[in-house]
This record gives sequence, C-alpha cells and structure tokens, in this order.
Amino acid sequence: MASNARKRVVILGGGFGGVFTAKHLQRHAGSGVEIVLISRHNFFVFQPLLPEIAGGSINPGDGVTPLRRFLPGVAVMVAEIRELDLGAKTVHVTLGGEPGIRTVPYDQLVIALGQVVDLSRTPGLADRALVMKDVMDAFHIRNRVLGCLEDADATTEPRRRRSLLTFVVIGGGFTGVETIGEVQELVRKSLKYYPNIRPDEIRTILIQHGPRILPELPEHLATYAAEQLRRRGIEIRLNTGVEAATPAGIETGSGPPIDAETVVAAIGNAPAPLIRSLPLALEHGRIAVDRCLRVHGQDDVWALGDDAHIPLGEPNGDKVAYAPPLAQFAFREAKVLARNILAHLENRPLTAFEYRSLGTMAALGGRSGVADIMGVRISGFPAWVAWRLFYLSLLPGIATRLRVAADWLLDLVASRSIAEIRAAQSASRQVRCLAGDLVIEPGIDPGGVYVVTAGMFEVGAGPDAAADPDARAQPPRKVGPGGHFGMPLDGAATPTNEWVRAREDSTAYFIGKDDLQRLAMVSALVGRRADGAPMS
Amino acid sequence: MASNARKRVVILGGGFGGVFTAKHLQRHAGSGVEIVLISRHNFFVFQPLLPEIAGGSINPGDGVTPLRRFLPGVAVMVAEIRELDLGAKTVHVTLGGEPGIRTVPYDQLVIALGQVVDLSRTPGLADRALVMKDVMDAFHIRNRVLGCLEDADATTEPRRRRSLLTFVVIGGGFTGVETIGEVQELVRKSLKYYPNIRPDEIRTILIQHGPRILPELPEHLATYAAEQLRRRGIEIRLNTGVEAATPAGIETGSGPPIDAETVVAAIGNAPAPLIRSLPLALEHGRIAVDRCLRVHGQDDVWALGDDAHIPLGEPNGDKVAYAPPLAQFAFREAKVLARNILAHLENRPLTAFEYRSLGTMAALGGRSGVADIMGVRISGFPAWVAWRLFYLSLLPGIATRLRVAADWLLDLVASRSIAEIRAAQSASRQVRCLAGDLVIEPGIDPGGVYVVTAGMFEVGAGPDAAADPDARAQPPRKVGPGGHFGMPLDGAATPTNEWVRAREDSTAYFIGKDDLQRLAMVSALVGRRADGAPMS
Repeated sequence: MASNARKRVVILGGGFGGVFTAKHLQRHAGSGVEIVLISRHNFFVFQPLLPEIAGGSINPGDGVTPLRRFLPGVAVMVAEIRELDLGAKTVHVTLGGEPGIRTVPYDQLVIALGQVVDLSRTPGLADRALVMKDVMDAFHIRNRVLGCLEDADATTEPRRRRSLLTFVVIGGGFTGVETIGEVQELVRKSLKYYPNIRPDEIRTILIQHGPRILPELPEHLATYAAEQLRRRGIEIRLNTGVEAATPAGIETGSGPPIDAETVVAAIGNAPAPLIRSLPLALEHGRIAVDRCLRVHGQDDVWALGDDAHIPLGEPNGDKVAYAPPLAQFAFREAKVLARNILAHLENRPLTAFEYRSLGTMAALGGRSGVADIMGVRISGFPAWVAWRLFYLSLLPGIATRLRVAADWLLDLVASRSIAEIRAAQSASRQVRCLAGDLVIEPGIDPGGVYVVTAGMFEVGAGPDAAADPDARAQPPRKVGPGGHFGMPLDGAATPTNEWVRAREDSTAYFIGKDDLQRLAMVSALVGRRADGAPMS
Repeated sequence: MASNARKRVVILGGGFGGVFTAKHLQRHAGSGVEIVLISRHNFFVFQPLLPEIAGGSINPGDGVTPLRRFLPGVAVMVAEIRELDLGAKTVHVTLGGEPGIRTVPYDQLVIALGQVVDLSRTPGLADRALVMKDVMDAFHIRNRVLGCLEDADATTEPRRRRSLLTFVVIGGGFTGVETIGEVQELVRKSLKYYPNIRPDEIRTILIQHGPRILPELPEHLATYAAEQLRRRGIEIRLNTGVEAATPAGIETGSGPPIDAETVVAAIGNAPAPLIRSLPLALEHGRIAVDRCLRVHGQDDVWALGDDAHIPLGEPNGDKVAYAPPLAQFAFREAKVLARNILAHLENRPLTAFEYRSLGTMAALGGRSGVADIMGVRISGFPAWVAWRLFYLSLLPGIATRLRVAADWLLDLVASRSIAEIRAAQSASRQVRCLAGDLVIEPGIDPGGVYVVTAGMFEVGAGPDAAADPDARAQPPRKVGPGGHFGMPLDGAATPTNEWVRAREDSTAYFIGKDDLQRLAMVSALVGRRADGAPMS
C-alpha cells in the first residue's frame, strides 16, 4: 500500500506520545508523508483526569478528545494491534466490527502504546481489584463506590456493612493519591443522602509500599499532602505491601486483614505484552532508545513516552538520568520525535531530546493540592487551581477544554450526582460471600447455578428440618472449590427446600439460567471431542 | 418490621409513576406513614430524553435524577424485585451486593414497575436488536453508531460498508421517530471527521407496521413529521412488518432483505414478567384498576402508569376510554394515587382519576419537532423549543434541569463529541459474519474458539495449499451450527495454517482463551453429574 513516492508513518497508540507525535507530524510534514495512527479507541484520554472521573466531578465523555477532530489530515484507525513484524515492516490489526486480520505496512514506525496494568504478582489481586487505566475504568469506580453506599444503606449485617464502607487504594503515586482523595470527596459529599450510614463508619485507606507517598515530589510537599489527606480522615499505611487479595478484602504484610468491598489498584504498570514479544532490547521494561528517540539497532522504528527508556544526557560514567513517564515529557518528546522522523526521511541530522521539568503537581480532592513549579512550592487551594489550569492547558482540543471547564463549574454550583449508572448486570458473574452469608433461601428460585471457586459452603434442608426430626439429624453437606449448588445443571427451575450458607469467606461463579443453555452446547462439544468424534 | 402504629407504603418501581407517587406521599403524609421505594436503579430516567442520549446531545449521567436527592424522607432501596406475595403482604428482593433474598413487608403496595421490552415474537430480533429502555441502552446506541462509522471508514469491502452505514429503527411511535431523527443527526454531524465515507453511502430507515408514523398525534402533524424526516434523507417504510432478524440485518414482509449492522427496536412493550405472574386480572396486558387506581379485588394494592389499565370515566355501554401511557398522565395519576392511599389509611372517601391531556409533542432531531398543545398545532423550530421547555419543566430536580440545560447549551456552541466510549469488549461474544468474510487467516493466533450458531463456514489449509498439490486437492471442510473452529478446545494456542471463511451470512459465538478454562470446569461438572458422581 505504501508507494515509493509517499512515505507512510504508522503510529501505534493514541495516548499522549502518539497523539502529539501525529499532531506535530501533521503540522510539519509535506504531502509526501502519510500519517496513520492506530489506536484502540477513537479518542484520547487524559490520564491525569481519570481520578476526577472516578470522583464524579467530570463526565466520562467530557474528559476525552476525539482523535479525528484533533488530528485532521491524520488517518485514524481504530483497531486492536495483534502482531508487529519488524522484518516485513508490517503491523497486523483487527478492526472492531470485522472478523479476520488486516495488514498495515509502514515506512517509519512509532511505538507509543503506553503501559498496561499487570497485577499478577499479588495472588488474587487481578480478579479482585478495580484499576484506573481507562475512562470506563474510572467511571466504573465511581459507580461502584456509589453502589457500596446503596448496599450499605440497606444492610444491617455488621461485617458486610464494614466491608461495603471501606475503600482501599493500593499505590501512593500520583494516581493512587488523587484517586483516594477523589473517592473520599465523593463519599463525603454523598453521605447526606444515605440516612442509615454514619460518617464514622466510613474508612478510606491508602496503602503505599514505600516509606512515603508521592515519591516523585520533594519530601516537604509529600509530607504536606499526607497531612492534608490524614486531616480528612484518610488512613495512610506506609511501608505496607499487599500480600494477597481475598474474597473479603486484602491481606497486608502487617496487621490484620482488611475487609473491603472496593479495592482499587493504582500499581502494577508494566510494558504491553506486544512490546515484551518484540526482538528489541528492553531496559527496566522499556524499549531502549538513543537520545534521538530511535530504537537501538533499528533504522525505522522510534519510541517515546512510557514505552521508551530515554537517556537525558550522554552516558557519563554510569550516571545518566532517564526521562520520567510524565505527560509534560511525552509532550516534548513528541515534538522532537516528529522532527527527527522528518529529518530522517530527508537525510538531515537528528536532534537529541533535552527537557527540564517545569514542575510537578498533584490534586488531593477537597479543593486542595500540592505543586512544585520551577522550584516554587505551593499547596492547598492555590495548588489545586494551578493543577486545573495546567491540565486544562495541556488538554488537546478546544471543545474538550470547554466541556471539562463546564463540568468543573457545574461541580462548584450544583451538587454532585449520586446516580449509580451501571450496565445491565451480566447473568454470569463472580459472587463474593462473607462467612455466614445465606446465599440461597428455601423455596425461592436461585435463578442459576453457583460453581464454587474458593472457600466452603454448606447446603442443608429447608424449614422442614425443624418439623421433621429425621431431616434435622442429617448434617449439612459441604461444597468446596469445583463443586456447585443452586439450580440443577439440567436447567429445571423448580425451587427446592434447600438453603445454602457460606461457611467461610468464599467466592463462586454464578451462571444465570439463560447462559446454561450456551454452556451446555459447548460442554457437549468438549465431550464430543474427548470421545474422538468429528468436529463438524 | 411494619409496626401497628406506623403504616408502611411500599412503591415498586422508580419510573415516573413510582417517583411522583413517593413525592406526593412524602409531601402530604404525616409521620405515621413510612414510604419505601424499591427501584432497580438509584436514579430516575426520563424516558423521553433517551433518544437525545442516543444522539449524543445529552450526557448519560446528566439526564437522570438521583432518587435520594429528589425524595428526602423516602427510604430508597436499590434492589431487584424477585417475588411478590399478595397474601402475606411481602415483597422478596435481592440487593446488588448481597447474596440471598430480603423480605420487605408492606401495608399498602403501589405497583409502578413500567413495561419491559419483549421482542420474542420476531425470530432473531431479541439477539440482534439494540433497545431503548435504559440510559445505558441509549448510550450504547450512540457508541455503536460511532463505532460503525469507525469501521466503515477503515473497510473497503462493499457489502460490509453498506451494512455498517445502514441504520434501521423499527417502530414509528414517539421513541422510534425521535431515535431515527437523533441518529441521523449524530451521523450527519459526525461525517466530516470520516474522510472515507461519502454522505450518499448513509442510509437511515424507519420501519413502521401501521399506515402512518406517530399514531398518537393528529394525522396532520404526523404527515408533517414524516415530510421533515424524508427531507433529511430518512426512508420511512409504512405498512411494513419485520419478519426476521438475520446475521446480516432484517427481512421485511415486502422488498429484499436489508443489510444493517445497527438495528434498533423501538417496539415490543410488554408487561413485566412479575406482573404476568401475579394472580391479578390483566386487561390488554395491564393490571385492571378502578377509577381510584386501586387494583380490582385488592384492598391494599394500587397501580398506575404503564402497568395499569385506568378507566377515564364510568363504564358507559362498552365505550370507555383508558389513560394512555404518557408521562403527563402518570404525573397526574401519582397525585391522585398518593391522595387516595392517605384517604384509605384514614378511612376517608377516595377520589376518581380525571385528566385531559395538555397535548402531545415529538422531537425530530435537527432542531425540528411537531406538537399539538391544547388544540394548537405547531411544528418546526418552535415545536422543538416547546418540546425542550416542556420536558425541562417535567424533569425532577433542579440539578438535573441545570445539567440538561447546560448540555443543550454546549451542543449549540461546541461540536458534538464523536468519542466512541465502550466498555472493554468481553472475551466471549456473538460474532456476525457476512458471506465471504475471512474469519481466520493462516499463521495467526485466532485467540479463542468459535462455536457456530447459524449459517455455514469453510475451513481449509493455508498458503501451503498452493505449494503442495495434495493439499490443494483436498476440498475445504464445512462447519455448520453446533460445530466449531479456531483454537483447539484444549486451549493450545499455536497458530495453524488453517483459514476459515464464511460461506454464507453466519453467526458464531466466540469464546476467548481466558474463558475456556472456566468453561472446561463447568463442562467437567456437567459430565460428572451425567455420570452420577457426587456433586461435592
């Protein structure tokens, strides 16, 4: 597809690095360069605003910038990247609505995929924790927090209440700190609508592995931030690692387990699996590039942002600093990278990336923040205003800035919405039970089958047990992992007189009756194949 | 729970009827009445605004009113209603975060559940069509429309392009007309960002079973509305029934099948299954009530809104009119119902419901509308403004009005967002293929297994076929419903040299590799049970 005359630059990823590389290329490249940007979404999401979406002060649709509007002249392709063939200079992608694989050739390739969340190092955490990677993740956290308030308002069982009203964020970096601040603010502002919940029942906990929060900031400001958060009732646990996630909550290295329905993991940034699969040298999980952002050993492949390990000077002994994964750096890297690609295509010399940070800042929720701007350290309300103005200035697109500003304004004048907006619950889902929970009551249709994945349940006979001495004599049957209870697997929906209770904290996978038929079909296939019968 | 002193009124449903009954009760009831409202969501959705959410001019979170804020003093319970025991005067519910069933006793019961969508009368439609019942449904339609534009922009295959760019709405009532108008407007406004799509490739089709659209409006206005829509390029097919939904689109009683990726069903309103299960007399699918809104044969059960068949006068021969399912009627019914419950509790006489409609109106998108207000018929821009002001006045809650007004204002000054915001795609999903689609390419990991649910696929050997004459001699293998292809079911992920192509329009259920393990577990259970082995 790429002709000899026209050179095609393919950019992988619609985050800060990719979008601004495309923007600078589009501004400065002539008609001899075709720019293709491949992104999973057709919009750019400004990661630093995600905690505000989780806190409900920004609408999920308002904090994002449609790529096509911001990048006229750039061919935007919404696709999942499946494979990268550096030898053939092609990218294999799948389009959303299409079966099969599409092949996209390139002349120059820019890798700007950003990082993924990998929680596999902590047992149970990947299944249990909410993450903050995407705009729908953030919106989901907002809705889960409000859902916990709903459920707690209706529940009298003490341990379940405690679990529903405990909000844990793991990770004391920017994202974790801003998220716990926003979640606390959302809960605090919403509580007046939940008459059955006392403010002293709420616990918000920030868990940080290291000795202080916000290690990216000067200690002075991090201390101030920690004080601010503590004053608002947020517990900060320093030097604390999470050992495991359980049905009930989390277990830390120190102290008793914490029962918490809501666990947000703001940790575990890792290179995308695609990057790990490439025959490229990685340094600290990032692609090794030279100071001109060209990938080591490659002529036509470039990388920037979170994906790239970018030296900030000539190797000098072994003391060389590397660019931190911050938006302001990616913004500047994109400028240099776009210039270098054009220089490379025209056989001009490349430029080395150099940048000195303008400062760093963090929002803490509750109209407070901390900032270090060119050596001047500010905190409280001025820092919070500075944070908003700075990010508004970085946000691509006038319409997006207008929408975000309108949301902030509305949040100042109108009360924040407590509407818990969730998609229809899937008929099949993970169910977590606390010890003692009555999962199935006698005489009521369970609506599906429960397959136990952890813990232990007891199944017993119903109210007849009291009337019938023989029934009472029979002890309850135990069902552990791999076992099941609820509806018979053949789908007969008659309620029985059985009850089921969790003996310990447990999880089960619930399969609704509508899904059972589909499963039966697949099961039959699995069975047939095991029998050696033909597949078709 | 309900003491002798305090009477508990339980309202089922958080729609117009339920919410305003609660509001009026809360205003006029003394401390001797406890009001409980049980709703699936913790917010009220104003149904007439759903088409605007589908069109992207209103944020999904802005068009809804949190119940707790609108109804201080009312005990709001977010729960799924499972069973209703009119004899024991109890409601059985499940709470979102809790296993097991909760029992809620009542003294007086108000049924205001609204209707559900039942598409089972048209083969294939329930699986295939998008519906407009909920705020997330509407938001999903917006995102699907934008997703179709994305896919079409990247696709050159003519039939797939046509299917992606054809938008069908079934049903010519208020919802259907407003939805096709809004979808057309969204597409029209977005098209400038999709350089590979020509405006003349877009088809928007409204299918109406009856001889005209908007049967609720005077013929004169309906004719005007149809003209307006046709002038904007919307095709209106009258006297047309949908016979079946297929992988490719729909089949109507007249004319060739229509290939369309996006099919919205604005038909099929039916009583909730719970209502059908009750031992109550139904008339035209609604609960028969007297003029005072009390359910026939019940002393303490009331119904209103879409659930109730409400006579508008004394039976007079057999010519009596019934209240139509319109918001303005439900609004007034709620007032009468609340008054009657309080009167009943105090042994005072009940009041009969009487109401004369103020008029009806419909928005058509593109800043146009039609209205009949107290006999005065207006159309075009004035009707559109009247529509917005009228609905703004009916919207409960100042904050919600402010947010909706702000969205409308933003839509006038800033361009509408084309960000396609979708939740992460489930690893298991229905895949629709058009005849000729290459579903699996040789040498590329299919990522999961496809179980064929309709149509026919061909599986053949890969590029080696050309090199190896023996392989070429072997004809492709056919796989039909119940068969499968893709990854081996034991989960080995090695890409093979097989290709798979759809022989005809077909559907398959794709199960991602991560889901295979869970399925294997359930399959093992099904197998074990079939063998008669113990369950635990």
